[in-house]
Amino acid sequence: MIQKIVLVGSGNLATQLGKAFRKNGLDVVQVYSRSEKAAKALAHVLECPYTTKLDELVQCDLCVVSVKDDALETVLRQIQLETTVVHTAGSIPMELLSGYFEKFGVFYPLQTFSKQRDVDFSNIPICLEASSDDVFSDLQALGKKLSTSVQPVNSEERKVLHLAAVFTCNFVNHCYRIGDSMLEEKGLRFDLLKPLIQETAQKVMGMKPIDAQTGPAVRMDETIINKHLDLLADHSRQKAIYQLMTESIYKTQNTK
Amino acid sequence: MIQKIVLVGSGNLATQLGKAFRKNGLDVVQVYSRSEKAAKALAHVLECPYTTKLDELVQCDLCVVSVKDDALETVLRQIQLETTVVHTAGSIPMELLSGYFEKFGVFYPLQTFSKQRDVDFSNIPICLEASSDDVFSDLQALGKKLSTSVQPVNSEERKVLHLAAVFTCNFVNHCYRIGDSMLEEKGLRFDLLKPLIQETAQKVMGMKPIDAQTGPAVRMDETIINKHLDLLADHSRQKAIYQLMTESIYKTQNTK
Repeated sequence: MIQKIVLVGSGNLATQLGKAFRKNGLDVVQVYSRSEKAAKALAHVLECPYTTKLDELVQCDLCVVSVKDDALETVLRQIQLETTVVHTAGSIPMELLSGYFEKFGVFYPLQTFSKQRDVDFSNIPICLEASSDDVFSDLQALGKKLSTSVQPVNSEERKVLHLAAVFTCNFVNHCYRIGDSMLEEKGLRFDLLKPLIQETAQKVMGMKPIDAQTGPAVRMDETIINKHLDLLADHSRQKAIYQLMTESIYKTQNTK
Repeated sequence: MIQKIVLVGSGNLATQLGKAFRKNGLDVVQVYSRSEKAAKALAHVLECPYTTKLDELVQCDLCVVSVKDDALETVLRQIQLETTVVHTAGSIPMELLSGYFEKFGVFYPLQTFSKQRDVDFSNIPICLEASSDDVFSDLQALGKKLSTSVQPVNSEERKVLHLAAVFTCNFVNHCYRIGDSMLEEKGLRFDLLKPLIQETAQKVMGMKPIDAQTGPAVRMDETIINKHLDLLADHSRQKAIYQLMTESIYKTQNTK
């Protein structure tokens, strides 16, 4: 059974994961970050010791490595623990861990995390992959303490999930940002868009997105579209996004 | 006081507006559509008479014209009513109505509407513009029966609001659609993305979108980005959207 956890990393995901572990009765026994300031800050939040040296990691039941993809291999190479080690990354195959550890896996919570906003883990899909059935069982038991939605997802599937998440979260948020900046320019409040944003998300809880699609692009309403492009004349990047998305919506909706 | 309403149009907005009027104690006394089938269907839902002839519209306190932008002027030209007439369009200036009517205005509910999904109007911004203070007061009183959020918005502002709505709703939904199609190809369920979609929308209820942004584009993480582009190799349209959005996120987030 997994009880004692070492957290390697101090970013958005490590922070929220650490909080969720503690909240659900698990012991975060140490955090690592290469930055002393970040390590100290997270250790303070989680009320546990910290280190900035990977050769000082303490024994535990699970080491969760949650660092930037680019840094992952460098970090893994330095971890000497004789315990299960998992990473939390969407796009990295589990096999990367096989060169370094005997028991390993992936613990990927599919969500967007910010340090300053706490997240309710209870219905977040936790996507698991493991080097053996035993490790999988341990990770599954751990996942179930956090969430009702724990799923086996292999490396290939996880990569696609992560890409889909970039579209449905990162790109979506960027669309919110563009809307916000347009309103700001006119002295209008972003609040005006909030009911629309919520309804747009709520709609696809019960309908397929292709059936929920509305707007001038669906029928290529050129009168409206040209007015919008005129409004965007001085914003070449936003204009390019408008044109590409409009074309893509039209083609998608009309080849159902 | 506005009590009796004639509804010209039978699309998503006319349908939801008609339902909301009735629910809030107003009388929809007639619906018009040029298609008999559509007129009949909406009249059935609203339990009122219908017509397919604009010269047969009945007297009322308000005529709400909710037709496609392209058809608006043709329809307005044929309306002979001596009453207040409003349109509900985001991108059409109020002044278009001035050639045809003495009392007129705009009644624009900022929301996404589908025929098959009922919408709670209570917090939808209803954006108003009117030919006189008296007409404005009447429309405001009407709006307040439907929603707690009734606002004066002039034609110039409404045009920008509508464009911002296209980004924050139509383009957002298209991102959901792309995510859905990617998962479908791998036999994964769209349900996996639902908590992420909800959290992404929920986040900007309390944070500015620019502060809520996450993902590989923020720091131009080329390892992940190149993996994603590889996955999209056979999907040229989605790949183009990925590249453009990634570049736009990076530039926006790094010139805060």
